Amino acid sequence: MPMTNLSAEQIPTIADILTALERIDGTIRLTPVVSEPVVNEILGCELWLKCENLQRTGAFKFRGASNAIARLAELGLDGDVATHSSGNHGAALALAASNHGRRSWIVMPDNSVKTKVEAVERNGGNIIFCKPDQQAREKGLAELVAKGCIPIPPYDHVDIICGQGTAVAELSEQCAGLDIILTPVGGGGLISGSAIAAKALIPSAIVIGAEPEGAADTAFSLEQGKRVEEFPIDTIADGLRAIVGVLNFAIIQNKVDKVLTVSESGIRDAMALIWCHFRMLIEPSSATVIAAIREYPEVFAGHKVGAIISGGNVDLEQLPFKP
Amino acid sequence: MPMTNLSAEQIPTIADILTALERIDGTIRLTPVVSEPVVNEILGCELWLKCENLQRTGAFKFRGASNAIARLAELGLDGDVATHSSGNHGAALALAASNHGRRSWIVMPDNSVKTKVEAVERNGGNIIFCKPDQQAREKGLAELVAKGCIPIPPYDHVDIICGQGTAVAELSEQCAGLDIILTPVGGGGLISGSAIAAKALIPSAIVIGAEPEGAADTAFSLEQGKRVEEFPIDTIADGLRAIVGVLNFAIIQNKVDKVLTVSESGIRDAMALIWCHFRMLIEPSSATVIAAIREYPEVFAGHKVGAIISGGNVDLEQLPFKP
Repeated sequence: MPMTNLSAEQIPTIADILTALERIDGTIRLTPVVSEPVVNEILGCELWLKCENLQRTGAFKFRGASNAIARLAELGLDGDVATHSSGNHGAALALAASNHGRRSWIVMPDNSVKTKVEAVERNGGNIIFCKPDQQAREKGLAELVAKGCIPIPPYDHVDIICGQGTAVAELSEQCAGLDIILTPVGGGGLISGSAIAAKALIPSAIVIGAEPEGAADTAFSLEQGKRVEEFPIDTIADGLRAIVGVLNFAIIQNKVDKVLTVSESGIRDAMALIWCHFRMLIEPSSATVIAAIREYPEVFAGHKVGAIISGGNVDLEQLPFKP
Repeated sequence: MPMTNLSAEQIPTIADILTALERIDGTIRLTPVVSEPVVNEILGCELWLKCENLQRTGAFKFRGASNAIARLAELGLDGDVATHSSGNHGAALALAASNHGRRSWIVMPDNSVKTKVEAVERNGGNIIFCKPDQQAREKGLAELVAKGCIPIPPYDHVDIICGQGTAVAELSEQCAGLDIILTPVGGGGLISGSAIAAKALIPSAIVIGAEPEGAADTAFSLEQGKRVEEFPIDTIADGLRAIVGVLNFAIIQNKVDKVLTVSESGIRDAMALIWCHFRMLIEPSSATVIAAIREYPEVFAGHKVGAIISGGNVDLEQLPFKP
């Protein structure tokens, strides 16, 4: 087990995730889990999709945001909240804040997809655009915090991680006998929460992450044995254009069995496959999990795989596959 | 109760629908039921969507087709099957036939949407194109039957109606306390099966159909007190471009409380609303139910409504709303 500089007390437990699930029950949707024999034949495994694209705000991010905002109320902390986000966490935080009568401020890269910008606005969030790099995002957020906003970071936060872990907690009840839990990897909120939930609730399953080659900082950090803070990011998967968080990386090192990198063309093809056979438009970030199965068939062959489809927020005018 | 020229024995019962559900269990997907507070606020009622757009082949039609094909096997009837269809029944029959090792022949109007033509082909169906009117469709089918194919009509058939009724049978278990069951009306397969299921399993609910003004033959037939055989059809809702069936109309007269007609612009706006808030692309036929709620608010206000979203087979290049 690699050493980290985080104490064990900082790592959330399964109890924290189950408490989060109770906390946000009735606010989040219990999203469906679907399978398709034709796709299973194509992929050579029994694939079950946990459809967070059908979650409120169109992404799993609403779980973490709802948990974090509800915690603020429990702790008696009033005031505006702020974050930086390529879109899904922003929209999720905006809705979660609105639900609790709070204002929200979202720092967004100026290359965010249109659908996601509109979603933040629709859910009552106030947007501040920045250059599309990690430094600019963090600087924008720091300025808001200096003005008195409570920061709710997109992934590197215990309450966010616990909220995201609730998807796998649900999945463990909805679908028995899974051999593999598979999620996209961006900042690491989803996979770290998923790994904690999976290792406790589905102990026989291994946990695998899928990361675009053009944003493979987590795979690279795992190779190096330490978290790298810079990595050239270039991927269609806009939801995964982030450097893995500190707490997230510590959890990934301890609880994730493998992170596989996938190609951009594999991501596009996977989006088309899911549209064709499930009638769901999934965003490129989500498609990484399907691309991973196609690009590493030996890892998945014959197994029962539970994959988190992380979101469905695509720009319909700019679909990256030929319908 | 209006008189019909059908004997009571021809009308399927709830027992037939529950037998159908048992017969196709494991073949069809148990589709999810979802709700969205923001949409409920917009519509002024508590709306639950039964997502047949996420059914295999992207439409409820796979229920009826699977039931009809499985019945043939039970009856010991071998051979190819044939039908006419604007698309969804065709794709459903093609897949159901393939599942049972049968060949299928589908007569399709030459203005069918591309996505639906491709779906028939993908599922192993053989397509015969015809002019886009009822006579040409029926003539094409008659020719196939003359060659020895077993006809599986798209809606005017006991086994099809029973299969379609299974969606409401599931819904009655998934969502308690519904006041209204709401479905699109085309040939009448879905609404007639739904009405039989609803009146038995949710006796306190009323059953309402939604029909495009440009294909309002059922509403007109109900007004006239008898089924009209011709009606000028002009609607974006390609799945509803059919004249209501004989058996279907008899059931509608007996068991459906109301058929509401909706505008084309209402259908387009409803598609956009569902995409915006549920991240699901639904086909125009499905959107009629949402349009009905918006155009007849007094009928639905304050009620708990279970609506069948009939399908998700849209041409992405030709979306009839601005995304």
